[in-house]
Amino acid sequence: MDVARVRFPVTAEDCVFCRIASGRAIASVVREDATTLAFMDIRPMNPGHVLVIPKAHATLLQELPPGSSAPVLEAAREISAALRRSDVRCDAVSLYLADGREAGQEVSHVHLHVIPRFRGDGFGLRVGPTYGAMPPREDLDAQAHRIRTALGSSTV
Amino acid sequence: MDVARVRFPVTAEDCVFCRIASGRAIASVVREDATTLAFMDIRPMNPGHVLVIPKAHATLLQELPPGSSAPVLEAAREISAALRRSDVRCDAVSLYLADGREAGQEVSHVHLHVIPRFRGDGFGLRVGPTYGAMPPREDLDAQAHRIRTALGSSTV
Repeated sequence: MDVARVRFPVTAEDCVFCRIASGRAIASVVREDATTLAFMDIRPMNPGHVLVIPKAHATLLQELPPGSSAPVLEAAREISAALRRSDVRCDAVSLYLADGREAGQEVSHVHLHVIPRFRGDGFGLRVGPTYGAMPPREDLDAQAHRIRTALGSSTV
Repeated sequence: MDVARVRFPVTAEDCVFCRIASGRAIASVVREDATTLAFMDIRPMNPGHVLVIPKAHATLLQELPPGSSAPVLEAAREISAALRRSDVRCDAVSLYLADGREAGQEVSHVHLHVIPRFRGDGFGLRVGPTYGAMPPREDLDAQAHRIRTALGSSTV
C-alpha cells in the first residue's frame, strides 16, 4: 500500500490500536506483516482471544481503501490454523467484527476478533425475537435487489 | 485462482452452498465476482442479512489456499457500505464467521455473515462466565508466544 496516497489518517493520536501498531503502547503480539498486526485481547472472551487490525487507522471497514481489508482475513485464517495446532484449547474459531457502534464496536479502529472455541464455553450469538422466521422468497429477492442497487451506486 | 491447482474439492455434491454457487439451487443473489458469491440468508438474524461465500468448497478457512479468503472480506466490506446506503435499516454491521462446528457452523462451506444492526435489535454476543477478567500481561505474553510458535511451524 502506498501510505502517502491513502485518504484517511494513517494514525490517530488518541487511538489505542494506533499506539499499539506504532509501538507506543504495549501489546502481546502474535503476528505482524506489512499492513496488519495481531495481538492478544486484554479482555479475552475465551483464553487465546486474538485481535487482528489493519495498521492504518480507520473506524469502519468502508473507510479502508479497496484491497486493504483483505489481509486482515488472511492473517485471521493463519492464526485460526495456528490456534488449532497450539496447546490453546481450540476446537473451532469464531471470527467477529463489529463495524460501528450499534454493532458493539468499542474501539474506533477496525479490529477482527479471533476467538478460540470449545464445547460448553458459554460463548455464542444472542439473536433477536424474529430470528428463525423464513421470509418468502419474493421478500428476499426484493431485499437483494435493493442491496444490489446500492452496490452499483458507488465505487467504494 | 488457478482452480486446477487447488487441493480441495471445488464443489461438493451434497453442499447446499456449492449448489447455489453453481446455479443448481435458488438464492437471492446480492453480489458476485470471480471467486465469491453473496446472497440473502434464508433465516435472517436481522432483515437484510447477507452471506458471503468463496465459490470453491472448503469447510474451514484453513482449508482454503493462501489468498483465497481475502476476497470474502473485501466483498463483505462493499456490502456493508451498500447496506448503509440502501433503505435496509442499518446503523452498523456485524460480521461473523463460525469456523467449525463448535463455533456454531451449520453449513460445511465457509460463509461470512453480514448482519445489518440497529439499536435495540436484540442481536449480540453471549459471553461465558469468565469474560471481563483481565489476565496478567505475562499470561498474555505466554499465550502470544505459544501462538507465534504454532504460526511458525507450518506454511498454511
